[in-house]
Amino acid sequence: MGFSDVDKLAINTIRTLAVDATFKANSGHPGSPMGMAPAAHELFNKFMTFNPDNPKWANRDRFVLSNGHGCMLQHALLHLCGYDLSMDDIKNFRTPGHPESFETPGVEVTTGPLGQGFANAVGLAIAQAHIAGVFNKPGHNLISNRAFCFFGDGCAMEGIASEAASLAGHLWSRKNECAKNGKAKENDWNNQLARYAEEYPAEYAEFVRRTEGKLPDDLEATLPEYCASDAAVASRKLSETVLEKINSIIPELLSGSADLTGSNNTRWKGAIDFQPPEYGIGEWDGRYIRYGGREHAMASIMNGLAAYGLIVPLSGGFLNFVSYNAPSIRLAALSKLRVIHIATHDSIALGQDGPTHQPIEVLSHFRARPNCMHSSLTRQNLPHLKNSSVQKALMGGCGYMVLDSANAAVTLVSTGSEVSVCLQAAAILEKQDISARVVSIPCFEVFDQQEESYRLQVLPDDIPILSAEAASTLGWERYSHQQFGINRFGASAPPDELFKMFNLTPEGVAKRAALTVSFYAGTLSVGKQTVLSPIRRAFAQIL
Amino acid sequence: MGFSDVDKLAINTIRTLAVDATFKANSGHPGSPMGMAPAAHELFNKFMTFNPDNPKWANRDRFVLSNGHGCMLQHALLHLCGYDLSMDDIKNFRTPGHPESFETPGVEVTTGPLGQGFANAVGLAIAQAHIAGVFNKPGHNLISNRAFCFFGDGCAMEGIASEAASLAGHLWSRKNECAKNGKAKENDWNNQLARYAEEYPAEYAEFVRRTEGKLPDDLEATLPEYCASDAAVASRKLSETVLEKINSIIPELLSGSADLTGSNNTRWKGAIDFQPPEYGIGEWDGRYIRYGGREHAMASIMNGLAAYGLIVPLSGGFLNFVSYNAPSIRLAALSKLRVIHIATHDSIALGQDGPTHQPIEVLSHFRARPNCMHSSLTRQNLPHLKNSSVQKALMGGCGYMVLDSANAAVTLVSTGSEVSVCLQAAAILEKQDISARVVSIPCFEVFDQQEESYRLQVLPDDIPILSAEAASTLGWERYSHQQFGINRFGASAPPDELFKMFNLTPEGVAKRAALTVSFYAGTLSVGKQTVLSPIRRAFAQIL
Repeated sequence: MGFSDVDKLAINTIRTLAVDATFKANSGHPGSPMGMAPAAHELFNKFMTFNPDNPKWANRDRFVLSNGHGCMLQHALLHLCGYDLSMDDIKNFRTPGHPESFETPGVEVTTGPLGQGFANAVGLAIAQAHIAGVFNKPGHNLISNRAFCFFGDGCAMEGIASEAASLAGHLWSRKNECAKNGKAKENDWNNQLARYAEEYPAEYAEFVRRTEGKLPDDLEATLPEYCASDAAVASRKLSETVLEKINSIIPELLSGSADLTGSNNTRWKGAIDFQPPEYGIGEWDGRYIRYGGREHAMASIMNGLAAYGLIVPLSGGFLNFVSYNAPSIRLAALSKLRVIHIATHDSIALGQDGPTHQPIEVLSHFRARPNCMHSSLTRQNLPHLKNSSVQKALMGGCGYMVLDSANAAVTLVSTGSEVSVCLQAAAILEKQDISARVVSIPCFEVFDQQEESYRLQVLPDDIPILSAEAASTLGWERYSHQQFGINRFGASAPPDELFKMFNLTPEGVAKRAALTVSFYAGTLSVGKQTVLSPIRRAFAQIL
Repeated sequence: MGFSDVDKLAINTIRTLAVDATFKANSGHPGSPMGMAPAAHELFNKFMTFNPDNPKWANRDRFVLSNGHGCMLQHALLHLCGYDLSMDDIKNFRTPGHPESFETPGVEVTTGPLGQGFANAVGLAIAQAHIAGVFNKPGHNLISNRAFCFFGDGCAMEGIASEAASLAGHLWSRKNECAKNGKAKENDWNNQLARYAEEYPAEYAEFVRRTEGKLPDDLEATLPEYCASDAAVASRKLSETVLEKINSIIPELLSGSADLTGSNNTRWKGAIDFQPPEYGIGEWDGRYIRYGGREHAMASIMNGLAAYGLIVPLSGGFLNFVSYNAPSIRLAALSKLRVIHIATHDSIALGQDGPTHQPIEVLSHFRARPNCMHSSLTRQNLPHLKNSSVQKALMGGCGYMVLDSANAAVTLVSTGSEVSVCLQAAAILEKQDISARVVSIPCFEVFDQQEESYRLQVLPDDIPILSAEAASTLGWERYSHQQFGINRFGASAPPDELFKMFNLTPEGVAKRAALTVSFYAGTLSVGKQTVLSPIRRAFAQIL
């Protein structure tokens, strides 16, 4: 392929811009933009279709720079193509050190951690195939975009790339994916969309709603409600019930699992698998992805699905193996992508599977990670609690009182399955004339965002607070004066035996609550302190 | 290959034992032991060399069951081969739910999380090649063992397996690895060892020392010492200096990096790469492994190296990308393997590389993880501190007072580069007539293991404590009343600008220290509390 003089000038402009900016910033890699400039020039100018004035145009081609350390290539190209990225931004290093979708128009996904962009691109390709499968109609090839990815040897060595490539290889082994140029630009495409709107008004309305990322209005009404007399049920099962109720109301939910469908309960009845139709095992518009044992690529593909738009990806795994895809979930949090990870089997209740499968430190990890809302699900059955409700979880800021008590001597704070253990502990304490309050904080992130006055109602001064959770205590010090948990790895045994071994029983919690009460009474009696809620801050956090 | 009647009986015995135990335990997978039994029988009885009475015999063949959910296969085989694993253990489910090296004699590595065993096996093979390279002499084929691995489709789909396979493919692409039977058993091998001892007494002594896992005696004396007047230096550079000093004293150190050699400073001058000699770029006894962009397999291979014995694996990476290999480091912690991960570039000081590269939640993750001692290294230069020393770090329990002060109004607690920020903050506070103590806690794990009386000396009652670290505050509540940190993702900018943006400057810390002092003075004045050290416990932790 020969280059014209204009081509050569364009290529050299990309190169000098990228190199100058890299040197000026004293950061970044000049080599990769130098090497990639000719291919990038050809791709952006002769193959890809996009609109710099509307970077979110639904049918644009998507470009991913997986070797994100060469970001000046992408920044230079976006500037030269007319995106809102000025020469001053580049000169004054107001561009990020790696491509960031939340900072720079025209950047589809946030890359830099090696291999992530490669798997994101597979997600963008899956999204295209799925959305085309859902919305395209005979004579209406509404969605015809393509995904392109540049990646380096570093990306290729990463396991996540092998995972994504093998899944992509399965999905498109029989399909010619060759990039074609000459696809309609946005102004021609708008005519297509107008014809589509006329012929398929309902589908058009849905297309617009999903493009705008709006959830349907009638969502809350479809959620199941339970009362305390209902039979105990595992929260992974409750999650499945919710999915059964909402999947038809939220067709943008694209579910899946990393080879744990039967354990994660993420597949609703009658779900169709996302598969090439010619395999005879699913459809392009199928809404269940069989990711296989590819946790890391799964989460990264989900980021690509969410970044594409019109899709809310959801999948399942064991909580302990969220550590396999934690780097991708981090990028979702950083980029504020709407992805849902259902993590089941959330504690030593996993029992016989042993310590390799029992999370201890995972919750602390995600509680320390910004922009993550988390609340994990049990394998074991749990009773329904009297003072718990959809409204409280939504409006009460995911941290609320489950059991009140006048003249309480202690507040027990917990989450998930241990809340019912605390309620039973409170009943035991009552018999010892120790009055206890019980508080549930399903999600630290949401609770921390509430007004201080609300948080102080939940965790007030003058009452010592004991936390109890079957996991590391690290972080519970934020909400309690004393902590009870498991600061070691678990063990292999039936769940009941393990809870007894670790004393995480109603009796074990009650015993520590009583010790907490007498400890603070003792310190008070020598004038040491009345207890101040750990919520109280001497200064505001910088966020 | 035909099976004799004895073979068939043995195979069926494995099968029935595995299936009965699985059903009795109401946990585990019966299918994989059923299917793998014939191959496992052949391997254990006709190919492998090992000694059930001495499961740690140095030249034993190593077996890894990467699909660890089929553990009853391995437990049945170990029982039938005569290892210390009784029928009662199996019947009463005293065997773990997945193979655990720290629980069961004959289990080389802890497996279950998919793909880990596969990469461990590559590590065991590398260890064999290396140790043979170091100790074998002409006519003395002392180390000739092999590593065998069973793995399932789940393991094969995991990216870690692709990473490990591609590295193994590079290392052995020209070598015939075909398993041979008929290798010497331990009693024959002991004669070999005796001849070796006679001809190579120094090497023999070293072989014994390393087999026993003993470190050399003269280690501490070789460590470099600095005084406060020495020039500031990055702690990643200090780490390199230490490696330069100790690498010849500790020849069992097998270093490496995941493609970040120039950034992690893990390669000492004159180090020889571990490579097949026929490539002309290294030697089998080389002590530096070029892992490539394969963080996950690297950590898992290191686990294999450590499990083999005679080796202390060490490698480097950016702290934020420890999340790529966190699942393998977890297994190292669970199995108590001696592995060293040098994590550099430990905060927003990474600057222009931006939030994808700046750790926020990583330290909380590892502080919550049991059996991990951690202390990460900076890219930026740090001053040497007056009251800091090797002895204090070793004997002071990795948590000690750096600056004392009579009548202190506040204690500042921190770690790493922020300790010098706190010292500067103390100087600013002094001018405001606020006297401050400064404490460094490099490693939570080590500090938590010290006597309460010592910890109370470091963090005493009656003085409010403020923590400061350029990372998530989650977990610092354990040691402080107020916390200052970064509970959001970072940003792309030169490091100095970022520290100013987040107020993590001497002035910013001093301001918050003053607010902390007046806050507690205020609460005191209304009779609320004198401050109790957060170290004080109402009850003992279960460990």
